[in-house]
Amino acid sequence: MDMEQVNSMDFGEFVDVFGNVIERCPLIAAAVWSQRPFSGLEDLEKHFSAFIDALPQSGQEGILRCHPDLAGRELQRGTLTAESQREQSSAGLTSLGAEERLQLAELNARYRARFGFPFVLAARLRDRDAVLRELARRLHRPPAQELRTALGEVKKIGRLRLADLLGGDPARL
Amino acid sequence: MDMEQVNSMDFGEFVDVFGNVIERCPLIAAAVWSQRPFSGLEDLEKHFSAFIDALPQSGQEGILRCHPDLAGRELQRGTLTAESQREQSSAGLTSLGAEERLQLAELNARYRARFGFPFVLAARLRDRDAVLRELARRLHRPPAQELRTALGEVKKIGRLRLADLLGGDPARL
Repeated sequence: MDMEQVNSMDFGEFVDVFGNVIERCPLIAAAVWSQRPFSGLEDLEKHFSAFIDALPQSGQEGILRCHPDLAGRELQRGTLTAESQREQSSAGLTSLGAEERLQLAELNARYRARFGFPFVLAARLRDRDAVLRELARRLHRPPAQELRTALGEVKKIGRLRLADLLGGDPARL
Repeated sequence: MDMEQVNSMDFGEFVDVFGNVIERCPLIAAAVWSQRPFSGLEDLEKHFSAFIDALPQSGQEGILRCHPDLAGRELQRGTLTAESQREQSSAGLTSLGAEERLQLAELNARYRARFGFPFVLAARLRDRDAVLRELARRLHRPPAQELRTALGEVKKIGRLRLADLLGGDPARL
C-alpha cells in the first residue's frame, strides 16, 4: 500500500484499514484521518502519537484499558483481535505451560489492581521470559512513570502495526 | 442494575457493559471509569458528555466517523452493533422501500462529502419521514454548527443507551 492510496481513502476505508493500529480504539484512526494528507509512515505514526499525547489522563488510561491481558482470558476464549493474537503468539504466550500461565495471571491481576489498567507491552519484540521479567519489574514503579511507559508500548505496538499495513521494515523503525 | 453494582465494577466489567454507550468507542467508557463512583444515571451521563466535550475537534469528528450510516451498507450487510440495529429498526429504517433507501443513500453521501463524517441522529426518537427531513435540512448548515448538532445527537443516543442499561425511564430524560 503506498501513501497515495492511503491519502485517497474516505474515512470509512481509512478506519477499516487503520482502525486497530491502536488496539480497539478506531476513534483514534478516525480522528487521525482529519490530518491527511500524510507524507509517509513516520508522519502517520506522528499523528497517532500526537492524538494520544493530547488526551486527558483518563483518556490515556482508557486506551490502556482497551488492551487485553497478555496470555489472559481473551486468549483462552479466542476473542483477541487478529493483531493481538499474532503478537502474543510470536512472543510464545499462546503456548505457556500451566505454571507459567498461572504466574502471569497472578502478576497481571496485581498490576491491574495497582495501576487501574492492564499490563501492556509490545509483545512481538520480546520472548516470554522477557515478558515475565518486565511485568515483575514494572509492577513496582510509581504510577505516573508507569503510565508513560505503558503509553510508550502502545505507540511501539502501533508503529509495528502501521509497518505491517504499509509494508515497511519494522526492524528499521 | 443499581449504582452500587456499577460502582463496584472493575474496568473490564465496566467496559463490557458500557463500552457501546458511545457507538464503537469503548475508549470513552474506559476513560469514564476513572471518574467513579457515580451517583446515578445523570452523573454517569455527565461524565460521558464531559469527555466528548474535552476532545480536540479531530477526536469529536472521530466519534462521529465511528457511527454507521442510517439505512446504509452496514444495515444491509447485518454488521450493525446490536444497539444501532434496534434503534434503526424502531425508526422504521430497516423496512424502507427501494426508492426511499436510494434517496437516503444519496443524501447520506452528500452529507459525508460535505462534512467529513456521517449523518448521526438519535433515530429512536424519530420516524423515517422525520429522519429524511432532518437530513435534508442539516445538509445545508455551516460545518461548525453541524458538528455541534451531531455531537448533541451522539449524547442523546448515549443517554438512551444508558437508560436502557440502568433501567431508567427514557421518556423522563
